[in-house]
Amino acid sequence: MKAQSAIQSEFDLIRRYFAGLTRSREDVSLGIGDDAALLNVPPGMELVVSIDTLVEGVHFFPDVSPAALGHKVLAVNLSDLAAMGAEPAWITLALTLPKVDESWLTQFSRGFEALAGRHGVALVGGDTTRGPLSITVQAHGWVPAGAALRRGGARDGDELYVTGTLGDAALYLASRNFNLSEQRLFDSLRERLERPQPRVEAGLALRGIASSAIDISDGLIADLGHILAASGMGATISLDRIPLSMEMAQWQRKSGDWQTVLAGGDDYELCFSADRSQGKEITRISEELDLPISCIGMIESQSGLRITQPDGKLWSAPDRGFDHFSGESRFSMEGQNGET
Amino acid sequence: MKAQSAIQSEFDLIRRYFAGLTRSREDVSLGIGDDAALLNVPPGMELVVSIDTLVEGVHFFPDVSPAALGHKVLAVNLSDLAAMGAEPAWITLALTLPKVDESWLTQFSRGFEALAGRHGVALVGGDTTRGPLSITVQAHGWVPAGAALRRGGARDGDELYVTGTLGDAALYLASRNFNLSEQRLFDSLRERLERPQPRVEAGLALRGIASSAIDISDGLIADLGHILAASGMGATISLDRIPLSMEMAQWQRKSGDWQTVLAGGDDYELCFSADRSQGKEITRISEELDLPISCIGMIESQSGLRITQPDGKLWSAPDRGFDHFSGESRFSMEGQNGET
Repeated sequence: MKAQSAIQSEFDLIRRYFAGLTRSREDVSLGIGDDAALLNVPPGMELVVSIDTLVEGVHFFPDVSPAALGHKVLAVNLSDLAAMGAEPAWITLALTLPKVDESWLTQFSRGFEALAGRHGVALVGGDTTRGPLSITVQAHGWVPAGAALRRGGARDGDELYVTGTLGDAALYLASRNFNLSEQRLFDSLRERLERPQPRVEAGLALRGIASSAIDISDGLIADLGHILAASGMGATISLDRIPLSMEMAQWQRKSGDWQTVLAGGDDYELCFSADRSQGKEITRISEELDLPISCIGMIESQSGLRITQPDGKLWSAPDRGFDHFSGESRFSMEGQNGET
Repeated sequence: MKAQSAIQSEFDLIRRYFAGLTRSREDVSLGIGDDAALLNVPPGMELVVSIDTLVEGVHFFPDVSPAALGHKVLAVNLSDLAAMGAEPAWITLALTLPKVDESWLTQFSRGFEALAGRHGVALVGGDTTRGPLSITVQAHGWVPAGAALRRGGARDGDELYVTGTLGDAALYLASRNFNLSEQRLFDSLRERLERPQPRVEAGLALRGIASSAIDISDGLIADLGHILAASGMGATISLDRIPLSMEMAQWQRKSGDWQTVLAGGDDYELCFSADRSQGKEITRISEELDLPISCIGMIESQSGLRITQPDGKLWSAPDRGFDHFSGESRFSMEGQNGET
C-alpha cells in the first residue's frame, strides 16, 4: 500500500504518474528534472508551439472522466499543431489540482499517455500547483522552414474542405444540457466530445497541398471566418455539402437545426482551402488515411461568408462561436486557442 | 471611451493589452494570430523551455499589485532559464481570469512588458480563459549545444556560490504574515518579494565557468539539495558566509532566525558550483555585473549538507522548502518549478 505520505513532493508526483510519458527521444537532451528542458529542433525545421488551458466548470464538467480530460487537454493542442501541418514532438504540462487524488491522477495520466503514445510525443517539463482544477498544456513540434499551413493563404477560386463530420460534439453536449428526448440516441457521440482525434496525419499530408488551414474549435463559421479574414477573401459554402454523422443528420432533418453544425464548436476537424488542381490528391489522402474529407464550397474574392441552402436561398448565419468573455457562462468542452 | 462591449473576443483582449510585447524579432516567423507560433532556434543551439503557474491564494495574495504579478510570473520563468545559462527569447502566456477588468489587465501587462522589454523577449502565443485567477507562463530560450548549466555537474572540491542576498523575500512575507513589530523596517524588502530580478546576465556569464547551477526558489537548503542529489555529492556551507541584506542581518542578529535565510524561498538568486581555479573569473563577473557573488562553502564527496556556525558547531537544518502538497496551505509568492 502506498501511503498518502509517500507523496512527499510535487516532483515525485509528476514523476510517478507520468513516468511512462517521459520516454526517451533522441531530440531531448534533458527532460524532466532540472530547471528547464533542453531540446533539439532538427536542422532546417521551424519550431511550432501552441498553448491551451482547460478550466473546470468552463471547459469541462466537474464530473468528466479524468481519463477523457487527460486525452482532451492534449488533443486540443495536437489539433493546433495539426492545423499548421506540424509534426508533434514534446509536451509540457502545468497541472493545478485542489488536492492529490491518486485515483484521479492515475486515470488522467492514462488518458494523456494513451494519446501521447499514439503520436510518439514525450513529456519534457511541467509544473504542479495547488488550486482550482485547471490544466495548461503546451505542444511543441516542427515543420520544414516555410512549409507551415497558415490561415492567410486562401486564394480566389480555391476549394474549401473539412475533415470528418461537424457538430457531433456540440449535439452531444446540447442533448445533455437540454435533456433532449433523443439523449440516448446521441450517446454514441460522447466520444466525439470527450475524445476528439487531432488530425495530425491529415495536417502532415496536406503540406504543400492546402493553401490555408485551421482547426475547428469554435465552430465552422467562426474558424472559417479566421481563414477568410487572414486571407482577405470571402467564401460560399453549401449546407448540403457539410458532412454530417448519421445521428447529426437525423437530428438536423427533424429539428431544422444548422446552428449546432455550423457554430457548435469542439469539432477539432481541419478546415482548409486548396487549389482546384489538388482535388485528386486530396481524394487520395482521404482514402489513405481512411478519413472523410469533403469539399463544402469555394473561396471567393467577394468578402463575407455566404451559406446556401439546397433551394439556392441564402441561410442567415447564427451567432459566432463561443467566446469566453463575450457570452454568458456555459459549460463547454471547447478547448479554444492558439489563436492569440 | 472604450465600452466594455468593445472587448468582443478573447483574441482582441490579448492583442490589445499585450500589443507592446508582440514586438518583431527576426527569429519569429509567425507570432500571435494563427493556430500556433512559428519560431527559429539558431543553428547549433539547444532549445531551453520552462513552464510555471502562479495561482491566486497559493502563490500570491489576492490584493497583490497586478503590475507586480505581471513582473513576477515572467521573472520566475526567466530565472529558470538563467539557471541553465540560457538566453531568453520567447514567451507564451496562458491567462485565466474571473472577469475582464481593464484596469487590472493594463497594470498586469505593464509589469509583464517592462521586464520582457528589459530582456528583449517577445510574446509569441497564448490563451485566455475564464476561471479562478491563474497564470501560466512558458519561457523559451537557447544555449549553445552542450553548454547548459545543469544541476548534476558539481565535483568534489568545487566552491559553492550564491548571487545577491538570501532570505529577503521570505522576511518581508513573514513580517506581513505575523505582523512583526519591525514590519515597517522591512517594507524596503517588498520589491525583493514582488519584483525579483532574474539573474539572466549572471547565468550567461557563468557558462563554461560554473560546474552546476540552480535558481533558489524553494530556499537554499532545498535547492542546493537538488544540486547535491543530482551530482551525487555533499557540501559544507558556513552561516557566516551567507550574504545578507542590512535588514536581514539586523533581524537575524536580533532573532537568531536562520530558517528564513536558508529555507524561506522566493529568492530567485542563483546557487552554483565552480572549480576553485575559477575564483578570479567569478570576481570579475561580479564586478562587471555589479552583482554580489559570494562563496558560501564547498562541495564534498561525503553526502549530506553540513551547515557550520561561527563557533564551528553544526547547525541543524530546519524543514525543507515549501511544497505545494506536503504542507499546510500558506500564502507564498514562491513560483516553484521547472523541476519536473
